[in-house]
Amino acid sequence: MISEKMQGYVKNSSAIRAMFEEGKRLASIYGAENVYDFSLGNPNVPAPEAVKEAALHVLNEEDSLMVHGYMSNSGYEDVRKAVADSLNNRFGTHYDESNLVMTVGAAGGMNVIFKTLLNPGNEVIAFAPYFGEYRAYVTNYDGVLKVVSPNTETFQPNLEAFEELLTEKTKAVIVNTPNNPTGVVYSAETLRNLAEILEKKQKEYGTSIYLISDEPYRELVYGGVEVPWIPDFYWNTIVGYSFSKSLSLPGERIGYLVLPTEMDDSEAIKNAANVATRILGYVNAPSFFQRVVARCLEEKADIAYYDRNRETLYEGLKKAGLSCIKPEGAFYLFVKSPVEDEKEFCEEAKKQNLLLVPGSSFACPGYVRLAYCVSYEMILRSLPHFEELMKKYR
Amino acid sequence: MISEKMQGYVKNSSAIRAMFEEGKRLASIYGAENVYDFSLGNPNVPAPEAVKEAALHVLNEEDSLMVHGYMSNSGYEDVRKAVADSLNNRFGTHYDESNLVMTVGAAGGMNVIFKTLLNPGNEVIAFAPYFGEYRAYVTNYDGVLKVVSPNTETFQPNLEAFEELLTEKTKAVIVNTPNNPTGVVYSAETLRNLAEILEKKQKEYGTSIYLISDEPYRELVYGGVEVPWIPDFYWNTIVGYSFSKSLSLPGERIGYLVLPTEMDDSEAIKNAANVATRILGYVNAPSFFQRVVARCLEEKADIAYYDRNRETLYEGLKKAGLSCIKPEGAFYLFVKSPVEDEKEFCEEAKKQNLLLVPGSSFACPGYVRLAYCVSYEMILRSLPHFEELMKKYR
Repeated sequence: MISEKMQGYVKNSSAIRAMFEEGKRLASIYGAENVYDFSLGNPNVPAPEAVKEAALHVLNEEDSLMVHGYMSNSGYEDVRKAVADSLNNRFGTHYDESNLVMTVGAAGGMNVIFKTLLNPGNEVIAFAPYFGEYRAYVTNYDGVLKVVSPNTETFQPNLEAFEELLTEKTKAVIVNTPNNPTGVVYSAETLRNLAEILEKKQKEYGTSIYLISDEPYRELVYGGVEVPWIPDFYWNTIVGYSFSKSLSLPGERIGYLVLPTEMDDSEAIKNAANVATRILGYVNAPSFFQRVVARCLEEKADIAYYDRNRETLYEGLKKAGLSCIKPEGAFYLFVKSPVEDEKEFCEEAKKQNLLLVPGSSFACPGYVRLAYCVSYEMILRSLPHFEELMKKYR
Repeated sequence: MISEKMQGYVKNSSAIRAMFEEGKRLASIYGAENVYDFSLGNPNVPAPEAVKEAALHVLNEEDSLMVHGYMSNSGYEDVRKAVADSLNNRFGTHYDESNLVMTVGAAGGMNVIFKTLLNPGNEVIAFAPYFGEYRAYVTNYDGVLKVVSPNTETFQPNLEAFEELLTEKTKAVIVNTPNNPTGVVYSAETLRNLAEILEKKQKEYGTSIYLISDEPYRELVYGGVEVPWIPDFYWNTIVGYSFSKSLSLPGERIGYLVLPTEMDDSEAIKNAANVATRILGYVNAPSFFQRVVARCLEEKADIAYYDRNRETLYEGLKKAGLSCIKPEGAFYLFVKSPVEDEKEFCEEAKKQNLLLVPGSSFACPGYVRLAYCVSYEMILRSLPHFEELMKKYR
């Protein structure tokens, strides 16, 4: 009785569920401490203390009717102003509250912007490897997702292949940097070249092509790496952000969209994004946590914890004979499978109680993703099992 | 550059926005205390103290990683169990956590269920007058909304007209009781007759027709009126609930769907609703407020305040020469316009600084809606202006 579209989505979801069930099954046999689950991007570092303090402040000092009430569908004006000010301070931009829409996480923001922009048949381009949910966010609005094949040397986007995919039907392009699943940060050079191609093609087709920058991992970078501010490179950029990772609040569903004044048809898009937020049933981003994050814009979770995990796991895997690009951001390692069929490798890994996600889930077979937002101790305990696993492949 | 569908939605939204702007304009001229804004269904009674206590408890006593983290897309198991237990206590049902999906308000729940059920061209029936957003929730998934003409005698649903609208394409029927905008509670007799028609038509067409009961006003009833539990009347009932009104938490976006085991294809629908929650970008209902409401299931906002408003406004309007059904629930009065074109009446009312919503917004022209979730003092101050307004129509 469920819709045909949902039948497809449900089928795709069963792999994730199967992995989750497998983890539970293994834990029940071997004990939770002997299962090494690298499959989930769920922060294991708690929210900073400032979040609790802000929550207590809002509860104790602000007016309950205002805190829990309706506001503009785009969010509280003062919250949007605070976010705009914070961005202006960091990136030298000139945003105000009218450029911000508070959203139900980055996922909510992407749905709002695709609802706003896409006519049936419009094309959206993503770069492999990419977060698998993008396909649903695009097809929800009858858009067509086109995928640029990966550049497995550097995992910077493959710009030659990209240029060939652009057509007069291209409405939007998704970038995600720091990247899930590779942890790669797109360089300024990459972004300059990307912008140049987009400008050329816009001119050629007489269209507007929006660059949607999905940035939940913006704050999660290591070794002083800088994440370029993409609207500096290309005026038709829309930024989607989430506090899920930076403040370890994934369950709260709080993020924002930046809709710059400089982009084509800015007023119409801002107005429509406000309406889309309402009619998609979000109505508004959760009110209490809008007010909480506004007080925590300069805070972040303990990134050093992830950094130690990154170093330890990266070195450990290398020692075991695996190879991967050393990630500069996010909390994932994207590791080359020692055999072509990475699903077979994942099955072998399971025999060592190691749970990894096949790269096929990110349109990049031959690789596996490890999420290292896990306890440091689990990483230490897992390393001998990677050694054991790799004996097969020497 | 925005999508064609959005252009339509934006156009429809401009009337609401115009009303809001008009209120601000009048307030700036006459002072806020001299503008009588009955246009918004935004609770003016604060959340009960128990909500704050629960919030403090969750912040201080529960594990931060769990409270703010991801859980099943359908919500925390213990929260869903608590909601199921509370329903079982009240209605003698036998739900468990598998029958509940926590949602981003009732609006989020309705989008989840329509995403789950509707193929393009499927028909959904609503009874006029109805909450205008239903049209968007249905057309979001390329469904077709069919509207049953109103029964303006009692504002119980017009069941003869309903029966004629049912076809083999009918996938769902929406009911909303206590009703926005009339405040009417559907009687047990109405529901029995409605169920009988649905059962007959299901059999005739060999289809399943789901009754979606949108119940944000369930707890807001006066004078001891009982709101029947609709799944008791018809097995293919899905209940959508929101804590927006009962706990005065509209901004928090927290509610649930009840997906009974008894309904046709229950397992597939429960599974798909879980997936739909994710891919629509909600991912899950806000985690902190899931945990808060689970501790407040037997609480409600100060309904006596609305009841006094109801009595005072109803009597005042009657005295001024207006007529309407005395509402038994929600916080709206649906008043007959003294002239056929109720928009003209709304314009006249504005001259008295009275802001009313035309019934056309609810597919029921000739009537106007007044939301009495406002301060009692504002109602008292407004009554002479209704007297003055009605002098024109005597």
